[in-house]
Amino acid sequence: MRNITPAEVKNSSLQQLNALCEQLREEIFRTVSMCGGHLSSNLGTVELTVALHRVFDFPRDKIIFDVGHQCYAHKLLSQRAELFHTLRKEGGLSGFPKREESEYDCYGTGHAGTAISAALGFAKARDLNGGQYEVVALVGDGSFHNGLVFEALNSLRILKTRILIVLNDNGMSISPTVGGSHEVFEALRSGNACDDDVRLFERYGLTYMGVVNGNSLEELLPALERAKEELKEGSVLLHVSTKKGLGYPFSENAPTETHGLSPKPAPKREYASALGEELSLLAQRDPRVVAVTAAMTDSLGLRGFFNAFPSRAYDVGICEEHAAVLSASLAAAGMKPYYAIYSTFLQRAFDEIVHDVCGQDLPVVFCIDRAGVTGPDGETHQGIFDLSYLSFIPNLAIGIPANIGEFRAMLRASVDYAAPLAIRYPRAGEEGSDAPIEIGKSEILHSSTSDILLIAAGERCLDLARRLLERAQRSGFSFTLVNLRFLKPLDVELLQTLSQKYIVTLEDNVLCGGLSDAVNRFFLNENRTIANFGYRDCFIPQGEPDSLARKYGLNEEEIWRTLEEFHARG
Amino acid sequence: MRNITPAEVKNSSLQQLNALCEQLREEIFRTVSMCGGHLSSNLGTVELTVALHRVFDFPRDKIIFDVGHQCYAHKLLSQRAELFHTLRKEGGLSGFPKREESEYDCYGTGHAGTAISAALGFAKARDLNGGQYEVVALVGDGSFHNGLVFEALNSLRILKTRILIVLNDNGMSISPTVGGSHEVFEALRSGNACDDDVRLFERYGLTYMGVVNGNSLEELLPALERAKEELKEGSVLLHVSTKKGLGYPFSENAPTETHGLSPKPAPKREYASALGEELSLLAQRDPRVVAVTAAMTDSLGLRGFFNAFPSRAYDVGICEEHAAVLSASLAAAGMKPYYAIYSTFLQRAFDEIVHDVCGQDLPVVFCIDRAGVTGPDGETHQGIFDLSYLSFIPNLAIGIPANIGEFRAMLRASVDYAAPLAIRYPRAGEEGSDAPIEIGKSEILHSSTSDILLIAAGERCLDLARRLLERAQRSGFSFTLVNLRFLKPLDVELLQTLSQKYIVTLEDNVLCGGLSDAVNRFFLNENRTIANFGYRDCFIPQGEPDSLARKYGLNEEEIWRTLEEFHARG
Repeated sequence: MRNITPAEVKNSSLQQLNALCEQLREEIFRTVSMCGGHLSSNLGTVELTVALHRVFDFPRDKIIFDVGHQCYAHKLLSQRAELFHTLRKEGGLSGFPKREESEYDCYGTGHAGTAISAALGFAKARDLNGGQYEVVALVGDGSFHNGLVFEALNSLRILKTRILIVLNDNGMSISPTVGGSHEVFEALRSGNACDDDVRLFERYGLTYMGVVNGNSLEELLPALERAKEELKEGSVLLHVSTKKGLGYPFSENAPTETHGLSPKPAPKREYASALGEELSLLAQRDPRVVAVTAAMTDSLGLRGFFNAFPSRAYDVGICEEHAAVLSASLAAAGMKPYYAIYSTFLQRAFDEIVHDVCGQDLPVVFCIDRAGVTGPDGETHQGIFDLSYLSFIPNLAIGIPANIGEFRAMLRASVDYAAPLAIRYPRAGEEGSDAPIEIGKSEILHSSTSDILLIAAGERCLDLARRLLERAQRSGFSFTLVNLRFLKPLDVELLQTLSQKYIVTLEDNVLCGGLSDAVNRFFLNENRTIANFGYRDCFIPQGEPDSLARKYGLNEEEIWRTLEEFHARG
Repeated sequence: MRNITPAEVKNSSLQQLNALCEQLREEIFRTVSMCGGHLSSNLGTVELTVALHRVFDFPRDKIIFDVGHQCYAHKLLSQRAELFHTLRKEGGLSGFPKREESEYDCYGTGHAGTAISAALGFAKARDLNGGQYEVVALVGDGSFHNGLVFEALNSLRILKTRILIVLNDNGMSISPTVGGSHEVFEALRSGNACDDDVRLFERYGLTYMGVVNGNSLEELLPALERAKEELKEGSVLLHVSTKKGLGYPFSENAPTETHGLSPKPAPKREYASALGEELSLLAQRDPRVVAVTAAMTDSLGLRGFFNAFPSRAYDVGICEEHAAVLSASLAAAGMKPYYAIYSTFLQRAFDEIVHDVCGQDLPVVFCIDRAGVTGPDGETHQGIFDLSYLSFIPNLAIGIPANIGEFRAMLRASVDYAAPLAIRYPRAGEEGSDAPIEIGKSEILHSSTSDILLIAAGERCLDLARRLLERAQRSGFSFTLVNLRFLKPLDVELLQTLSQKYIVTLEDNVLCGGLSDAVNRFFLNENRTIANFGYRDCFIPQGEPDSLARKYGLNEEEIWRTLEEFHARG
C-alpha cells in the first residue's frame, strides 16, 4: 500500500474516507495473514483511527495507544504504509508504537494500562512549556481494569491539565472482559446508566461523552469534533463502542482466537497445553489446587481447567498485581494456587512477589510462560529478565524445565512443595521424559573425563548444548553436560562434585543477575576458567527467536570456539 | 499493659469499652514515644478496632490491615499487650501485622493496597473449603488511590464471594489525600453524594453503608452489627470517618508530622534535606526540572520544592506505578523528572522502570531514599533489594553516593545526563565533599602498594571500609580502597588498572544481583581471590540498622579476619 499523507485524510470526502477504511482493513488483514500480529483489535479500530487522523493533527497533536494492539491503521496513516509488509519482522516495523520508529509514535507501549498516565505527562509538559497540542489516549476497555489506569484517573485533578481519553469499548480484552469496571461500561453502553456512572467520571475530573458507534465515521467525526471543543475546558472521556474483528466474519465471530495470530502454525508443541493437562490432573487429586490468570486463560492453556473447575479458576482481568496478592492470600488460607502468566507481564507483580508471596513464604507456584526471547512482538514482550528479577528474592525456588516432560514433572513435584516456586518456560518445545524430579536437584546429562563442563538450563540452551556436544564428539573431544534445572535452590551437592577446570554456562536470559552470576559465585576462588553465554545488557528488538538468540548472545559458533579453545588448553 | 482476653471485650459494658479505648490510647502513646512507630493513624482507629473485636470473633474471623499502620490496638487486644513494650525492637513485636507473630495476624502487610485482594483470597478459600468465618479488610482512604485496590474491587464480582471492607477515611494518607478518589469519598462523607457515588460501589458488587463516626463506639457497634448481617448476602463497604491522632492534641493538629515517629531525634543529617535543597537549586536554573512523588513529599525532603515550584511538583498519592509512567512521559515530552521514593516502595514500579523509562531510554532520575537496611519497620521496609532489581535493566545508570556531599554532586551531574539514572541512598549520613563528579566514574580513596583491594559503595560500606583501613594501618598493613560510586556503568577504565590479587567487596544490599556480582563478573578468570560481603539471601527483620547490618552480612570482625588472612597470604 502506498503512503498516505495527512493532507489526503483531511481533504477526503466521507465516501472517500469510508473507502480508505476498507483499504486499510484489507491491508491489515493481508499483512497479518503474512506476518502474524494482532488482527481483531486492529480491524475494529480502523474507522476510529481514520477519524482521529481527520480531526487531530498528528504528529503535532499526540496520540498514545494503550498496549498498542490497535496501532496498525495509525501506522498505515503515518508515512509507514510502504513499510507495512515488514511488520513484526527483524528490522521491520514494530507491531507496537515505538518512539524511534516515527515521530507519529510519541510514546511506546506494549504492556497494558500506561496510556492515560503517559498522556498526562505529555499534557503537563505542554502546559509548562506553552506548547500548542492536544493529547489523546486511546484505551481499550480491557485495560480499564488495570490498576495503573485508576492511578492515572486519580491524578487528573491533581495535575490540572487536559487530555482526551477515548475508551474503545469492544467488550473484550484478550479474553472476554470481566469484573466490576465492565459493569460500569456495560451500563453506560446499554443506556442503563442514568447519571450515576457518568457522575463517577465527573468526580475524577472528566467530562463524559458517549456512547458513539466507533465503526461509523458518520457518528465518530462529529463526536470527535465535539470532544475536541470540550477539551478546551478540561479533560474528556469519549466512550466509543467498536466491534472487534469487524469486516472479517471469521474474526468477528472468534475475536479471542484472532486476537493474536502467528504467521504460520507453530511447529512444536506448546508448554501451555501441558500446563492445562497437568493442572487439571493435579486438581482432580488435590482439592487445594486453584488457578489464577490475568486475562490470558486461553494462551496459557487453561481453558480446559476453567471449564472443568469453574469454582477453582480465576481470571481477574489485566490485573497482574491483584492476581499475585490473591494467590498469596489463597495460599495463606490453605489453598495451592498456580498463577500462570507471561514472563514480561509478571514484571507488573514484582513487588507482590517479594512482599506478599516470598516475604510470607507462601506456597504459590508461578507458571511463567513465554520466557526467553519470544520474537516478533519485540522489546516489550521478550521474557529475558525473569531469572534476574526473581533470583535474588529470598524463599523463592526457580525451576527451568529442559522440555515439556520435565515441565510436567516439575508441576507434579510442585504440589507438595511448601514454599514459593517459579517455573519459567518458553512457548513451545518438545515432549521428553516426565520421570519424577526433586525440587532443587540438577541432572548430569552427559559425563566426560575431559576438563570441560557445560552448565545450562531450559530447552533452548540444552538443545544448543546437545548440538555442541555432538559437534565436539565429532571433533574428537567431549564435555560434561549438566542440566541445572533449578537456579534456586542451587544443587550444591551435585555442583561440588564437578571439578572441571573449564566451565561454560548458557542461559536464555540477560547475563546480569541470572544463571551465570549464580554459577560464577558458586565457583568463586576455585581457579576455574568460566565463559558465560546469555543475552547482552540491552533490550532485544523484534525478530525470529532463534535469530535473535544467536545475535544477542547465544551464538553457537562463538560458544563452539570457546569450547575448542578450552579443549586446546585443557 | 496486661493482656486482654477476647471474652473481656465481648462482655464489657459500653462504658467499660470506652474506658478500654482510653487505656489503649495511653498505651499506644506511651509505647510510640519510647519505641517510635506510627502514632496518629493508630490513635485514630482505637474505637474502630475495639468495635471490630467486639462484633467479630478473631482469630476465627479474619482481619487484614491495609499497609498495617493501624494495627497497634489490634495487637493490644490479641494477647500481645504484655509484649507491646518490645514494639519495633529487634526480636520484639512487629509494627505491622505478621503471620508468624500471632494467629490473629492472618496476613502480613507493609506496602499499600493489598488488603482487599488478600481478603478476597481468604474469603474464596473459605467458600471452597466450607469454612465458617468472616473476612474484614480495613483500608485507609490513602490506599484507595492505589491501583491494586481497584484491581481487587474489579474482582469482587468475578470471585463471587463476600467480604467486609471497612474504609477508614481520615482524609489523610501520609500526606493529605489527593485526587479523584478523594472527591468520591469527600462527597460521600459530606452527604453530597446522592445515590450516584453509592451506585459506583454497587456496580462493583458492594453494598455501601456509611458514613459512621469511627471514633464513637455508640455509632460503630450497631453499624458493624448491621454490616455483619448484610455480609450474609454479599460484600459490604462500611465507610467510617475517623480523626487521625485523636486524643492527643499535638497529634490531632499535626497528623503528618506524627504519622511516623522515631524514638529519638536522628543524630545525623538526612539525605532528604539535601535532595530538597539541590532540586530547588536545579529547578531555578533549569525549567525542565520537575519532581514527582507518591504520597511522601515531606519524608523525601520535598516540601520546600513543592512550595517553591507548585506547578512543577506532583504528589500523585500512593500510586508508585503511575508516578513512574508520568515521569517517563514527562521526559518523553522534554522535561527532566526527578521521581523520589523509598527503595522498598519503588518495587511497585518495577515494570514501569523497565517498560516505560529504560525501554525508551528516557532521562528520568530515580531518587531512592531509605536504601540499605532501614531498621525498626522490618522486612517490608528494608531497602536491600534495589541494586538487584535495577542492575540488570538496560540503559539504567545506578549511582550510590558515599555521603551527602557526593549525593549533591550526583544530582548536579544528573541534570544533563540524557538517560535513565537511579541514585540510591540511606536515610541519614554525613555531609562531605560535593566536588563535581562524572556519571560512571569511580574514585580511589586510598592507594596502597599491598596486594589487597577493597571495593565498596554507599555511606555505610565506605564508613566500614575506612574503619577497616585505619585498623589495618594500626596493624601495619594497608589496602587500596575504591569508592565504586556507580554500579552502572562500571568504571571499566579504572577497574582495569587495579591488579591486586585479593579483592574484598562491601555492599548494603543482598549479595545476589548487586555490586559483588558485577565486580566478580568484571574480574572473572583473572585469578583474583575475592571475598564478597553483603546481605544473605533472606528477609531481614526489624532491629537497629547497625546491628542488623552486622548480623546479616556486614560484620566488621568477619571482614577484618578476611583482610588479615589476605594480608597473611599476600
